[in-house]
Amino acid sequence: MADPDVRHMKWWGWGHEDVTFSDADRPKIRPYLQRELGVEDDCRTPPVSFEEVQLPEAKQNAPFVDALKKVLAEDQFSEGKKDRLIHAAGKAFRDLLRLRRGQVDYAPDLVVYPASEADVVAIVKAAHEHDAVLIPFGGGTNIAGCLEPHDKAGRFVVSLDMCRMHRVLEVDKKSLTARMEAGVYGPHMEEQLAEYSVTLGHFPDSFVHSTLGGWVATRSAGMQSDKYGKIEDMVIGLRMVTPSGTIVSRTVPKSSNGIDIRHLCIGSEGILGVITEVTMQVHTVPAYKEFYGWIFPDFEQGVAAIHECLRLGCMPVITRLNDPKKTALSFAFKKTQSAFKDFIGKCVKAYLGKIRRIDLENCCMMITACEGDYDTFHSQRRESAHIFRKRGGVCLGTSPGEAFQETKYDFPHVRDYLMDRGVMGDVSETATSWTNIIPLYKATLAAVKKAIADTGKHPWVGCHISHNYHTGASLYFTFGCRQLEGRELEQYLYIKKAAEDAFMAGGGTLSHHHAVGTEHLPWVEADISPTGVKAVRALKDGLDPKGVMNPGKIIPGPNSVAEWGLTDEAIQSFNKAD
Amino acid sequence: MADPDVRHMKWWGWGHEDVTFSDADRPKIRPYLQRELGVEDDCRTPPVSFEEVQLPEAKQNAPFVDALKKVLAEDQFSEGKKDRLIHAAGKAFRDLLRLRRGQVDYAPDLVVYPASEADVVAIVKAAHEHDAVLIPFGGGTNIAGCLEPHDKAGRFVVSLDMCRMHRVLEVDKKSLTARMEAGVYGPHMEEQLAEYSVTLGHFPDSFVHSTLGGWVATRSAGMQSDKYGKIEDMVIGLRMVTPSGTIVSRTVPKSSNGIDIRHLCIGSEGILGVITEVTMQVHTVPAYKEFYGWIFPDFEQGVAAIHECLRLGCMPVITRLNDPKKTALSFAFKKTQSAFKDFIGKCVKAYLGKIRRIDLENCCMMITACEGDYDTFHSQRRESAHIFRKRGGVCLGTSPGEAFQETKYDFPHVRDYLMDRGVMGDVSETATSWTNIIPLYKATLAAVKKAIADTGKHPWVGCHISHNYHTGASLYFTFGCRQLEGRELEQYLYIKKAAEDAFMAGGGTLSHHHAVGTEHLPWVEADISPTGVKAVRALKDGLDPKGVMNPGKIIPGPNSVAEWGLTDEAIQSFNKAD
Repeated sequence: MADPDVRHMKWWGWGHEDVTFSDADRPKIRPYLQRELGVEDDCRTPPVSFEEVQLPEAKQNAPFVDALKKVLAEDQFSEGKKDRLIHAAGKAFRDLLRLRRGQVDYAPDLVVYPASEADVVAIVKAAHEHDAVLIPFGGGTNIAGCLEPHDKAGRFVVSLDMCRMHRVLEVDKKSLTARMEAGVYGPHMEEQLAEYSVTLGHFPDSFVHSTLGGWVATRSAGMQSDKYGKIEDMVIGLRMVTPSGTIVSRTVPKSSNGIDIRHLCIGSEGILGVITEVTMQVHTVPAYKEFYGWIFPDFEQGVAAIHECLRLGCMPVITRLNDPKKTALSFAFKKTQSAFKDFIGKCVKAYLGKIRRIDLENCCMMITACEGDYDTFHSQRRESAHIFRKRGGVCLGTSPGEAFQETKYDFPHVRDYLMDRGVMGDVSETATSWTNIIPLYKATLAAVKKAIADTGKHPWVGCHISHNYHTGASLYFTFGCRQLEGRELEQYLYIKKAAEDAFMAGGGTLSHHHAVGTEHLPWVEADISPTGVKAVRALKDGLDPKGVMNPGKIIPGPNSVAEWGLTDEAIQSFNKAD
Repeated sequence: MADPDVRHMKWWGWGHEDVTFSDADRPKIRPYLQRELGVEDDCRTPPVSFEEVQLPEAKQNAPFVDALKKVLAEDQFSEGKKDRLIHAAGKAFRDLLRLRRGQVDYAPDLVVYPASEADVVAIVKAAHEHDAVLIPFGGGTNIAGCLEPHDKAGRFVVSLDMCRMHRVLEVDKKSLTARMEAGVYGPHMEEQLAEYSVTLGHFPDSFVHSTLGGWVATRSAGMQSDKYGKIEDMVIGLRMVTPSGTIVSRTVPKSSNGIDIRHLCIGSEGILGVITEVTMQVHTVPAYKEFYGWIFPDFEQGVAAIHECLRLGCMPVITRLNDPKKTALSFAFKKTQSAFKDFIGKCVKAYLGKIRRIDLENCCMMITACEGDYDTFHSQRRESAHIFRKRGGVCLGTSPGEAFQETKYDFPHVRDYLMDRGVMGDVSETATSWTNIIPLYKATLAAVKKAIADTGKHPWVGCHISHNYHTGASLYFTFGCRQLEGRELEQYLYIKKAAEDAFMAGGGTLSHHHAVGTEHLPWVEADISPTGVKAVRALKDGLDPKGVMNPGKIIPGPNSVAEWGLTDEAIQSFNKAD
């Protein structure tokens, strides 16, 4: 495994050039971005150097530190600049904007590295007794502001980095459960599980950089959720340390023991306590697995094909359907291939356009994967292919699927590349019912396009569907445009607001798997109702009476909209009549 | 639909004789019960007559009633004896014991029948303002004391019967969701859903007598949970009226909007509010469905067969495996059949014993059902049968399955029959991991047998498995013995305690689908941890600050063990060394 520190620094733009955009490796992406978003070649807005970043002076809380020194070793504390910087933010657009400018107004005053649940208990106890704020930190990949280290009361802020709690403790191969420490990173977890020939089956786009505890705390979704479910569907038991004690659930498949305490911890985003241990359901590694690329004549046909597979019980384990814009982008992001493959690619294009009469401007790429034992794999492949063809789908074979596999974790770095060049790129995602999928897709696309146009820029908006359920699916929007110099954040927030408002107006949810954090606070009441907010606040007040656990997240306050950062004046200055 | 009042009265022993135990209909059950439990033919401990039942005088709360009279119609209130009696208890052994004796110490002072969510809001508001206790009432089938109308503070107690909110409001056939009022009874709901050719797929043993809202409030499980999941897996959206406002969740398949507020309502057993509306996932009615009976040489082989079906992805939609005792009981409960069928039955018995050399004392009956479209149905049937045979299973064809279908809802009335004759019969159920299933089965069986023997009686203890999950399954114990005259309740509690203690000691949960209520209060801390209890209490205090919603349930108090009704002296008087 790469040193997590190095990974963090790269993801903030320091040293990320090795995620290549060179013409030799990906010849099409630069011309594409140039054409679509006016991205120039020169890196004209690079991040400031690490040395130039100024952190606020660390506050002191001697009683807290003294209490911990009795329990933790010297190397479990850090006040170093790099550690404080790494733990000062997640990976939201807002975070990158500030960090790249060296504009770090808030950073944790101390980073602690517990190595056991006993350490976590001591840290939480000390925080509660000595009024220090604790922010649980997994991989630091959250893009919703869940890690925002700003405490309004100005208290001492501690980032609690779980990375040393990375062991798979126990695998029960008969029951197919794995008891694991919450700080384990995705690849390290799968390495350890592979020793037992099992897999969790959870592969979010952040997989390489994120942790089990982070997934559970934010209700994450992975790339194979169509087979394995969302993270909340996989949790069998857990332990969470709160200022009022440790919540421990029994490792049983199901229960009727009142309100399910596991679900009080799942999605709690650190506001109640620190998830230290999780028992997950796991799966034997399937014998057969293959990725495929399919082309559909349009988005609607692709959606109809997925829906029909679900209804007929032959869903592949991945169905990731790109809309036309996202399709063009993913073609452009392809790595260099052999001259022969390139030739075949051109033939396929000609075939699609001339023989199949597919409108290449409007066509949609779907990446699928089938897996299972011999029979399951083959029937899944055969039956889904039959349905896809009925909907006008054309199979491009396994190479687009393999290409996707190879590059899926590189894709988020496009944003760094863009931001180096004065261009904004970000995402907003939701979920809704099958009946509502296409209307909400269209409404959001229109709303985000309008918002970008309002800021005077040419919009790029794409969407993909990658998580499908019995009653509905997710919609994941990617958008970008040239930034307004001097108004980069306002412009971004104006566009982000358009997406979230469209979700709320159109029967979506504020996020399907990115969490609430601080970024989605303005939409919480509309999503879970004011009384739902009261319920969450009641839990918070009951378990964390001094409010030391990750304050300011999930629960909106009276000023949440104002604090979000988009003034009415800014809205009015952008907003143009339809 | 039968008049619910009539159904209620019957289930309490008044007029239940039409659920027949006559020699003509079920010739084997009376001899079986005579042999196994010493049940005599004469009904020597019948319930007192309805007229003999003395209810406590109804308390008055004029401000509450006056507030409601502005909103509700005359026929939405009742203080009548029958209504108060029907709402005075659930169907726990403790309830039956008291009611049959006419020993009704607590009953609601008033029964109200809301017809809309607006009515519920008005009732909850009036209760909050005028300090009246509200007990939401669905079908009244709960056997864990969830409906106990005793308020320690002696406040005015109101039973809020949801039966007039029984409409299916909206079915989205594309998304496969149904929005329904929570008071709808099982059969009436399925009738309404059938108009859209969909089904909820939830068939608990209480199906005929219980409601959607009750299922959601208690985390119910139905007979086809292997395919359709437990009730908590089917809830897409809901509305719950609390004293602090109405919790409303969005109808989206999945979300990452913080702590899942749906799961704060599911399993809340009325202590936070009244569930008024639920949006459930539904399913198209399958084209093919068949029930089968299988005989396995022993319980272990049956369990192994289910486990293998799960692992190989060919689970039938029902797999209900009886242990040897439960198998013998279900054979004895069979209805009269034709002479020919009877002859065939004897041939099968001879074949099993003599040709297949199955020990008939030790063999286990499994009821299964396969369903789906043509391909799914046939492959499910073929593949599961292959596995069952590998484990020594012998298929008895469809007639035992059909017999089970016919009689499944009659079975609970065996208890009434026994209680008429001085014999106790009850159940306790749990869930655990696959690794732990057989050890917990054996440990609980031994513990319950010992407990009964301690009371000086001959034990009858059986078990079945009927809910199977990726990581484990449920264990459902049925036990009975002659009652100790004058010590019926103590004896029962001593035996019940043995079962629950065994669950806790052996890695089970306090209940898989019967809820906590008051009956399981002594085990809540051990099950969800003391901090888990604090979390639930925080929710309760936050949403229901005056404690008017179903007080005394789920959350154990300092005297929960003492109040449960089994004194240390009683325990000592029974307890014998191993």
